[in-house]
Amino acid sequence: MSSSLGHNFRLTTFGESHGTAIGGVIDGMPSGVVVDRVLIENEMRRRQDAALGTQRREADRIEILSGVNEETTLGTPLAFLIHNADVRSADYEPLRQLFRSGHADFTYWKRYGIRDYRGGGRASARETAVRVAAGAFAKMALAPLRLQFSTSYLVGGPVPDDDSRGGTVMCTITGLPAGIGDPIFDKLNARLAAAMMSIPSATGFEMGAGFEAASMTGSEYADRWEEGFRTASNHCGGVQGGISNGMPVHFRVAFHPVVSFHQPQHCIDADGRLHTVTIDGRHDHCQVPRAAVVVEAMAALVLADLVRLPV
Amino acid sequence: MSSSLGHNFRLTTFGESHGTAIGGVIDGMPSGVVVDRVLIENEMRRRQDAALGTQRREADRIEILSGVNEETTLGTPLAFLIHNADVRSADYEPLRQLFRSGHADFTYWKRYGIRDYRGGGRASARETAVRVAAGAFAKMALAPLRLQFSTSYLVGGPVPDDDSRGGTVMCTITGLPAGIGDPIFDKLNARLAAAMMSIPSATGFEMGAGFEAASMTGSEYADRWEEGFRTASNHCGGVQGGISNGMPVHFRVAFHPVVSFHQPQHCIDADGRLHTVTIDGRHDHCQVPRAAVVVEAMAALVLADLVRLPV
Amino acid sequence: MSSSLGHNFRLTTFGESHGTAIGGVIDGMPSGVVVDRVLIENEMRRRQDAALGTQRREADRIEILSGVNEETTLGTPLAFLIHNADVRSADYEPLRQLFRSGHADFTYWKRYGIRDYRGGGRASARETAVRVAAGAFAKMALAPLRLQFSTSYLVGGPVPDDDSRGGTVMCTITGLPAGIGDPIFDKLNARLAAAMMSIPSATGFEMGAGFEAASMTGSEYADRWEEGFRTASNHCGGVQGGISNGMPVHFRVAFHPVVSFHQPQHCIDADGRLHTVTIDGRHDHCQVPRAAVVVEAMAALVLADLVRLPV
Amino acid sequence: MSSSLGHNFRLTTFGESHGTAIGGVIDGMPSGVVVDRVLIENEMRRRQDAALGTQRREADRIEILSGVNEETTLGTPLAFLIHNADVRSADYEPLRQLFRSGHADFTYWKRYGIRDYRGGGRASARETAVRVAAGAFAKMALAPLRLQFSTSYLVGGPVPDDDSRGGTVMCTITGLPAGIGDPIFDKLNARLAAAMMSIPSATGFEMGAGFEAASMTGSEYADRWEEGFRTASNHCGGVQGGISNGMPVHFRVAFHPVVSFHQPQHCIDADGRLHTVTIDGRHDHCQVPRAAVVVEAMAALVLADLVRLPV
Repeated sequence: MSSSLGHNFRLTTFGESHGTAIGGVIDGMPSGVVVDRVLIENEMRRRQDAALGTQRREADRIEILSGVNEETTLGTPLAFLIHNADVRSADYEPLRQLFRSGHADFTYWKRYGIRDYRGGGRASARETAVRVAAGAFAKMALAPLRLQFSTSYLVGGPVPDDDSRGGTVMCTITGLPAGIGDPIFDKLNARLAAAMMSIPSATGFEMGAGFEAASMTGSEYADRWEEGFRTASNHCGGVQGGISNGMPVHFRVAFHPVVSFHQPQHCIDADGRLHTVTIDGRHDHCQVPRAAVVVEAMAALVLADLVRLPV
Repeated sequence: MSSSLGHNFRLTTFGESHGTAIGGVIDGMPSGVVVDRVLIENEMRRRQDAALGTQRREADRIEILSGVNEETTLGTPLAFLIHNADVRSADYEPLRQLFRSGHADFTYWKRYGIRDYRGGGRASARETAVRVAAGAFAKMALAPLRLQFSTSYLVGGPVPDDDSRGGTVMCTITGLPAGIGDPIFDKLNARLAAAMMSIPSATGFEMGAGFEAASMTGSEYADRWEEGFRTASNHCGGVQGGISNGMPVHFRVAFHPVVSFHQPQHCIDADGRLHTVTIDGRHDHCQVPRAAVVVEAMAALVLADLVRLPV
Repeated sequence: MSSSLGHNFRLTTFGESHGTAIGGVIDGMPSGVVVDRVLIENEMRRRQDAALGTQRREADRIEILSGVNEETTLGTPLAFLIHNADVRSADYEPLRQLFRSGHADFTYWKRYGIRDYRGGGRASARETAVRVAAGAFAKMALAPLRLQFSTSYLVGGPVPDDDSRGGTVMCTITGLPAGIGDPIFDKLNARLAAAMMSIPSATGFEMGAGFEAASMTGSEYADRWEEGFRTASNHCGGVQGGISNGMPVHFRVAFHPVVSFHQPQHCIDADGRLHTVTIDGRHDHCQVPRAAVVVEAMAALVLADLVRLPV
Repeated sequence: MSSSLGHNFRLTTFGESHGTAIGGVIDGMPSGVVVDRVLIENEMRRRQDAALGTQRREADRIEILSGVNEETTLGTPLAFLIHNADVRSADYEPLRQLFRSGHADFTYWKRYGIRDYRGGGRASARETAVRVAAGAFAKMALAPLRLQFSTSYLVGGPVPDDDSRGGTVMCTITGLPAGIGDPIFDKLNARLAAAMMSIPSATGFEMGAGFEAASMTGSEYADRWEEGFRTASNHCGGVQGGISNGMPVHFRVAFHPVVSFHQPQHCIDADGRLHTVTIDGRHDHCQVPRAAVVVEAMAALVLADLVRLPV
């Protein structure tokens, strides 16, 4: 089930970074939704423009294969493709037998006994383009709720020429009615945590006051009721017992710096011998601005699954 | 699906804190496992003894209803019960029409249009007893792997008499072979994050270097390969691309302070009017020591689901 | 996932025929439903009275453990137990090392490497008591739709004293609105087929005209529209393209005769040697009347999962 | 979940008959499998050649988009496309406002509030091309087991020029080891029943002796053990208690005649008024030969999901 997310609004993704195409299938897209091509393009462009210093400039045009007729959704699976236009697999030839430090090269090999060594294969950040496209469809499905997504980010420090930096992404969603989410294992905060930690390079997740809550007293932390079913503070981030309480939902996600950069990389081979290699591939110095766009898309996907959409 | 966790080793839980019983059903327990009653008792006792200042002292004896014959598992669903011996529902009578600040009272009511006002109902921390019992079965299932779970905690500050404190729990698992976990949406770190954030009062989750990774450079962060498929550092927490790399798995979970304590509590009623109530129920001043036991149980449940157990 | 049925209204069952108890957990029971104890008792009694010639007379009283307060459902998991009162495991001692002809003894052993030899264990028809109880809850959940279930049966021939007979069960459901069911793999007819074929001893399933449809011409078979969105015939059994069309849903299920009866039974042991044994256990001569009650319960469970119930 | 089948070997399909393309994504395809292009082509050709009297002759070439590098599977999702080359949507223009007798036109409209009127949309038999392609991949995954699939069919009577006929498909699988399948709700026979009844036009399913078993006595029906863990008869069709017993698995599926043919068709409009229309679309007189190929593919998909494949 590794490539599917959600139950009622279910996204299944596929594609290696240097294969023919990447894409997704959404099962559970409501019918009768007019496809907002401008929204899709804007979201894809936001992701693309957000890259600091990357040299790869694919178009990332979304081709819809099914689930839409006369620009209106049918309720049937909505499949879409993003072709991999600009593929320079030869750059990665030296990596055919090597596992880079800090990458998923070794773990994919242990998991599958084989791996697509070209540009990270399925583990590449290229995969997030599908998440952003699917997030645009999720936003269309959620449109009747008039949610507001607001996302910002903080880069963790100055970005040197030949190195990289991580950072944190803050996301706030206003307009979510109280009563969304399920108790116990499918709590809204648990579903958000899983979705965010599934983004490549995510290393931490905080809901509301997050780690700071650990050093508060109970009387400081407890969000006190005020008139009108509002709370004076919002330390819980808009979720209590796993269910939204009508206040803004807010959370923070940490991302480690990218580990592909223009320094010699320490690699290991299948026999456990060490090697040093410099790879010519194209890389961001900082993926945090891009990650912010992905965070928002993932939040939309989680909500589209938990909210009871019209069928 | 809110009360089920996992696919191959699936736990389904049930029970309100002041009902007849709470319990769980494990579908996917391997056959031929000798039930380790001492382990179960020890885990339940660890959870119980961990409570700081709670006055409720239920026995928490596990009654196995099915899936076991002659003290050996059959491979069929293993159902178990924990009876609610010491129930003083009358304490909660004033809450019948009120929603406390900081609790899930209001959100359950919005979600279901009804709620069990007695002691938090399903949202009570009592629910975690089932997680700990199920975690003991998960550990039995995982025994052939000889994993080592090591858990510690830090309370966030001094605990005043009439207030409460949160804290953080650190968990390390050694012995997990490389290759466990799935890419994309079912990453080991994502599954751990969801499991941990589903624990009552959890507010944050960090894998490996976590939020600190956000301010590292890429060359600092990247865990460099050494001989023997080990890495010099372990900033990634033993997981790369969602899959274990053979190094210790480690993560941290933040918990907010309990919001039930012996001060007057601010409540709201269904018409939006404010009230102040003092509840006599029995409460911990700090749930973090208990939460540590639950964290370990949840980690065992996640691994029992992801590792390919003998059928 | 073998012991769970459904997604939105999900039943998980547990229990061996000669263990402490059998039971089930329903996750997705709507909140605010008044528990109809009379309906539960009636359904359990229908199942019990339907047995022809069985000597086992357990009470089959349903004990509700959770999900209900003050006789009203809470929306949380509804767990219930049926205690195994009258257990004579010693009857089955000769079977400890033997696999009977026609039973699941051998296949459970191959599947799990172990089996509960006492009275069929999990493969016993006793398991259907849980289905009938759960079906009663499904009917409560479906009550706002005012469906009518009508079930009848045909025994396949005269029942000799020392032998057994199978038969067929016909089920009709009226009142189901058009538009229920999903295309492709979750068709209403596919879901019904799986549910019915999962009943012990089921050997065949027909929707509408069923096997007779194979020898019709297309112009005979096609159910012609009449005024008022009705069709002149109902060969499709009320389902087209996997979705209900508003006409009565009807189907038929075949059951083979029970294979436990008072003749010497041919068994094989783990070394492949043949044995003949006469078992003293208590057995029906014909399970078809009971099966009819189970068919109806399973139909209710399928519909409660597919219909969009109030949350 | 309507467009996904299976858990461990999961197929998700998409596509309308007159859209850009139809296709599927397989999550759970084992890694290291050499893609057998000849097998795929043969299966697609079998399905195509099997059509009696259809005039539509699309190429049905399978384009693999992901999950394969250097003709070997990667273990990542295997996505494939079949382009809809020969689309004459204009033929269906008269149906835009009409629901044909015997079709899913009306039910899709009730389910989704909209439908793709062009050639049946998602409900078209064209969808089965994806099943056959996916079945070929399932067979590759199952290759180490050396199963033998044998399928035959019987047309229900003579096929008149301007009418159509149904029939039955018999399928036998030899080589399946004992112990495959799960008890209770995921029985091998239940999974096969759901898979077969999900094929367009399927109306009945029988396992082993099927409906004939209803009129046998228990001593006739019970498959008697012989030396070597074989049974003298195979009335149960190779499955006991939902689990394979090592004997050949066999079952039968009934199909109703196609309801698109060259006679005037009775339709209803959204206001409930009747109309008669003659459609020029291209149609089989008998889909049973094609259905046989689909039955075999579905059986392979079910087994690939239930058998524990190498990861």
